[in-house]
Parts: sequence; C-alpha cells; structure tokens
Amino acid sequence: MNNFVYDVPVKVYFGENQLSNLGKELSKYGKKVLLTYGGGSIKKIGLYDKIVGELEKFGLELFELSGIEPNPRIESVREGAKICKEQNIDVLLAVGGGSTIDATKYIAAGACVDFDPWDFFSKWAPIEKALPIVTILTLSAAGSEMDSGGVISNLETQDKIGRLSPHLLPKVSFLDPTVTYTVSPYQTACGSVDMMSHIMEVYFNMEKDFYMLDCFMEGMMKTIIKYTPIAMKEPENYEARANLMWTSSWAINGFVNGGKNQEWSCHPMEHELSAKYDITHGLGLALLTPRWLEYCLDETTVSKYYQFGVNVFDIDKNLGQMEVAKESIKKLSEFFFDTLGLDSTFTKVGIKPEDFQIMAQKACSNGTINGFKTLSKDDIIKIFEMCL
Amino acid sequence: MNNFVYDVPVKVYFGENQLSNLGKELSKYGKKVLLTYGGGSIKKIGLYDKIVGELEKFGLELFELSGIEPNPRIESVREGAKICKEQNIDVLLAVGGGSTIDATKYIAAGACVDFDPWDFFSKWAPIEKALPIVTILTLSAAGSEMDSGGVISNLETQDKIGRLSPHLLPKVSFLDPTVTYTVSPYQTACGSVDMMSHIMEVYFNMEKDFYMLDCFMEGMMKTIIKYTPIAMKEPENYEARANLMWTSSWAINGFVNGGKNQEWSCHPMEHELSAKYDITHGLGLALLTPRWLEYCLDETTVSKYYQFGVNVFDIDKNLGQMEVAKESIKKLSEFFFDTLGLDSTFTKVGIKPEDFQIMAQKACSNGTINGFKTLSKDDIIKIFEMCL
Repeated sequence: MNNFVYDVPVKVYFGENQLSNLGKELSKYGKKVLLTYGGGSIKKIGLYDKIVGELEKFGLELFELSGIEPNPRIESVREGAKICKEQNIDVLLAVGGGSTIDATKYIAAGACVDFDPWDFFSKWAPIEKALPIVTILTLSAAGSEMDSGGVISNLETQDKIGRLSPHLLPKVSFLDPTVTYTVSPYQTACGSVDMMSHIMEVYFNMEKDFYMLDCFMEGMMKTIIKYTPIAMKEPENYEARANLMWTSSWAINGFVNGGKNQEWSCHPMEHELSAKYDITHGLGLALLTPRWLEYCLDETTVSKYYQFGVNVFDIDKNLGQMEVAKESIKKLSEFFFDTLGLDSTFTKVGIKPEDFQIMAQKACSNGTINGFKTLSKDDIIKIFEMCL
Repeated sequence: MNNFVYDVPVKVYFGENQLSNLGKELSKYGKKVLLTYGGGSIKKIGLYDKIVGELEKFGLELFELSGIEPNPRIESVREGAKICKEQNIDVLLAVGGGSTIDATKYIAAGACVDFDPWDFFSKWAPIEKALPIVTILTLSAAGSEMDSGGVISNLETQDKIGRLSPHLLPKVSFLDPTVTYTVSPYQTACGSVDMMSHIMEVYFNMEKDFYMLDCFMEGMMKTIIKYTPIAMKEPENYEARANLMWTSSWAINGFVNGGKNQEWSCHPMEHELSAKYDITHGLGLALLTPRWLEYCLDETTVSKYYQFGVNVFDIDKNLGQMEVAKESIKKLSEFFFDTLGLDSTFTKVGIKPEDFQIMAQKACSNGTINGFKTLSKDDIIKIFEMCL
C-alpha cells in the first residue's frame, strides 16, 4: 500500500433547482463570466435561459464560447483562451459533459500563459495557474466535474492527449440529475461505459489492495450495472440518473486510487481510436475492455477477476477461480453489447486493420503501456485484432 | 432523494513518513502554533519529538496545551482559547484522537469570540469563524479529522453536546496508520464500534435509498468487521490499521449522507451514558446498538435489516426477511461482544436503572429522537432496560 495525498476541494451542489446558488458562487471570483458549451442542447432544455437569469440577478457580465466539440479540439481551447485575455474574464462557467469541461480547463490554463495551449500537451509546458472554473454537468460520464484532468484532441496531428493538474480542479460543480433526462439511450450507455472503465483501470491491478476502496469500486460498478438500463428505458427516472451522476464524479476524482500508481490501459488505446475515427469514447472503451481483460487473464492475475466476478456480478463463489474469471468477462460483454446494445466489433463501427500499426504505436509512445499487464505495441495490435 | 451540498475540502496526507509535509502546511497559516494533545502517549511513541523537529525546520513557534481528556471537557476548551488570545496563535495543531481534535475545534472557535465557549452549546451561540486547524490522527474512531463536528462535555452540568460548523473543518489532516500501532485492543475495538455506529445511524433509515452510497456504507461496515479483529491481534498490521483509519474519516465526513435528514439515535442516547458514567463512547454504543436495532425492527423497517444482513454479514438471501433481520442483529451482537470482547450489559459496566429516567429525559431533550424510529423518553427507557 503506497502513500497518497487526498485533496479534492470541489464543492458540489447535488439535486434539482440548485442553480439558485449559481450567482452567489460565481460572484466569489469576479464579474466577468465566460460561459462555455457545446452544440446548443442547453438552449433546448431551457438550461441556458435559467443560467442567464441567475447571472443577471447578480449583475454578472456574460461572455460566450459555444460549439465545443465532443472529443474537444485544441482550436476551441485557443479561441476560449483568446476571449479570456481580450475580455479580462474572471471566471469560467462550463455547461456540458466531459468534453466541454475538459476544454474549459485548458482554456482556464491557456488564459494565464503567453504560449500556445497545445504546448501543454506537445511540450508538457508547466500548468502553474488557471482561471477559476465552475461547472454545470449535463452528462454523466467523464467525471471532469470533480477531477483535475482533461483530454484534448488535435485533428491536425491526430493526437488526443490527457493531462492532470490540481489547478484545473473546478471550484464548484452543479450536479442536477434532471438535466440528464434528455440524454439519449446511446449516450447514456456510452457515458456509463466510460465510468465503468475509469473504475476498472484502477480496480484491475495487482498492487496491494486497499480493501475499503475495492469495496467502493465494486459498489460503483454495481451501481452502473443496475441503473444504466433503467435510465435508458426510463430517461426521467430520477433515482437512476442521480446514482449514475454521482458515480461519474467518484469514479475518477482520485479517491479510489488510494496510492496505486499503475498506468491506465484501455484509455490510452481508446484515445487512438477516437483520435483517428472520432468515435464516441465510451463506445471505443466498450469494444476494447472485454478483449483487454481476456488478453490479460492468466494464473498471475486470475484472483482479481474472481473478486470482480463474485462481488460485482454475483457469480457463485464456490466455482473455480478461472471459471469465475471467464464468466465475469462474458457477463461484462453481455452488459456492454446486449443490455446496453452497443456495437460489439471494430468491423461494425468501421475501424480498419490497416490503421492498427500506427494506432498501437501511438498508444504506447513511451515504449509500453505499464498497466495491469505491461503491453507492447505487438500486444496492443493483438488486442485490436480480438476486437475485429 | 433529497438535495445536498458536498463540501469537504480537507487535504489528507495518508501513509507513513508524511510528516515531512507538516512544516510546509502549518507555515501557510502563520508562525505561532498551538500544539494540543492528551495524556502524553505521543511522547512515548516518539511522535512529539518528530513534530517539534519539523516545526523547528520551518522556524515555527511552539505553544502547548496537553492533558485533553477523553470525552473532552469545556475547561480544556476555555484554557486553549485563553492561550490563543494571549499568545496570538495563528494555527492549531491537534495531535490525538477525536477527543483532542474535538476540543481543538472549539478552542479554534473560542479564540475568535469574547464570550464563554460553553455558550456554543448551552446557548447555541453562532460559530462564525475559527482559527485554522491541522490534525495528526492517533486513533481511528471519531472521524473528527475530516468532519465539521465536535462533542464537548461539561461535568458540572452533566451535559455532553455535539455541534457542527463548516468553520471547524480541519485544513489538513495527517493519517499515518503506523501511529495507531500502539492503540490497545480495547481502544481499537471501541474505535471501530464508533465508526460502525456512525455508518449505521445513516444506513438504518427509511428515507429513499441512494444505492451507490448504501454500497459504500456496506463496504465500510465490511471493512470494519474484517480488519478490527486483525488489528487487535496483530497491532502492527499495516493493512488492517490503514483500512480502519481511512474508514474512520469517510464514515462521518458527510459523504454517505447524500441528503438524508434523519436524526441520529444511538449517539444521543450514548452521550448521556458517557456524560453520567464517563465510559468509553464506543463501549456505550456497542451496548446500545443491537438493542436499538431489536427495538426498531418491525414490518415497516425489516427490509433495511434484510439488506444489511445479506450485504454486510453475507446471510443467505433466500431466507425470509424477518429471519435475516433477526440473524443480522445476532451477528452484530456476536461481533461486538464475542469477537471484539466488549462488555455486553449495563450491569457489567456499572450503569444503574435509577439513572434511566434522567438520562432518557436528557437524550430526548426536544421531546423525541426523530431517528430511524421516533423514540420518546419511554422508548429510550425500554431500550436501556434491554441493555441490563
């Protein structure tokens, strides 16, 4: 068990009609607010008007950057940083899912530097400060509302790179499950796979367990498995939306790591898929995860699969470890591809073998992915082939 | 499901040898540090010398208040507040368990007011600010290291009263499991019962469940049940001490509440026992909890016991609800009185029926305890009688 520092000072307003606190919270940081959002669904659901109303009550000055893309691009970050500098923005208000919030984090950091924000990724330029960020979450998935990371895409270089910094933690996040009522079944499913993967990247780990945290991770995985199908069938089921929303934050805010140092595996592989094909991140993860698990299963790792199968999928604990392990992968595949109805192969979504070499190469740009099992370029290609 | 605000900005250094960060953290708040502690065990285990060394490195000026009692008394709070005012203390460093940290919280608040700190309890005087608090935890139990509450005793009035305020949240807490290696088996057991009760006070609740949080609570209860006997038998088992320590913080920092409003039941009853008899808080809770559960069990509440029995004690889920419920109470009693070896009756610890009236009266000073089941004075007396 390694040492760690837990430091997640994000204030969360959870529930309906909490936006009455928005003006008060934003006002702590100044008068000029840059509102960032995506394609305009926040106008359709009436959220935009509510936000404008709350800002007016507190005499806040509103600036806007809309059109932030899924798999958000460096161009949006550059544009946002430019607005912040030109208008002397005091605080950023990101309204959206992980894409909008991730982009906003780097806008906040980009506003404080003189260089191109892509240098944060291409040159690992230091992130020493950032404008304060408040978020209103509209999609339960990435967990960006309570974590210190963000992933930005550069279509020109076909890169999709993530990075963490404590300066990027939102100050306040508003989590209203009713805001996610209009999220489609497909996006709900993809969001849940993303959360599931955030947990599995930490859970499947042969470092010494922190039992309490393993229990938490198992609880969150059970929560996702229980409530995702309900939210897909009954989009206005508050209980389902609330459970998924709070799980999205806790799956990735660092709490469950408990000092584990292992690198993630499926995320770096998936980032190459969506950088190349612009597919939904959660779909890419669903395709990869069961095959990755299958590839990593052997006598040295089987105990973790057994724990997963028994505690998450309630598989009979009296069966043999390897039998439980294989059954757990089968159950996970059934959950992703049958229950959630996601496409089950690369072929179905148009990912082609001729790109495997370059995607695998980029996924392990430091030589190997040092995750649950160390994966070389060849290992990654084999996993890609299992997805065909 | 009710709305809630999650706001726990306590930074935690978890693990061995993290005290190298102490001077840096204290220095953020000033130069003059009031170190508060209990009976001197921190000198025996070498912690005191380490702290003094770290403070010297950063040129911090050390003041001391020692002798803070278990069930800490208002006299210590008064004395500490006086030192803070006279010496212009900048930051408080509480080294101990819940008692020391609780007292320190009210010293920190008392230092900022002109009235007697007992007014915080007797007159509910406002807590509008407090000096910053850093803690070094030496006992896994109360969770005061990561919560906003504290309980203070007044032997003169035979009162023991708790109160919350966000101003009392520690800024930083150091959680080193090895510091608890010298905690006796008895104190380890009592600490674990306290944590168990913090969770059960929230878990046993007929408001609408927040499934994810119920999973977390069940995980923490399983953690306590798994690791307490190990820590008692092998006091230097790092894994056991670490799991208990991190559970102590998360059992009561507000996270698992998830908007539930229910009052606690066993804690107000127990506070009267320890106010009158000065017994260990955890022992009082062990005596009361199984009887309280037995008293509250009926057709309207049985489903929660069933969930508890199946998910925490792994009782066969195919048995009838009432059967599982009764078995779960039996298992809990066995855990407290057999596995942990705590005294199982009021008679054994000297609590006498002639005090039941007055203790029950004080436990429900507002008329009733509005907890899992509403308890009147007569109900409380009946529960006390079940403990004889």
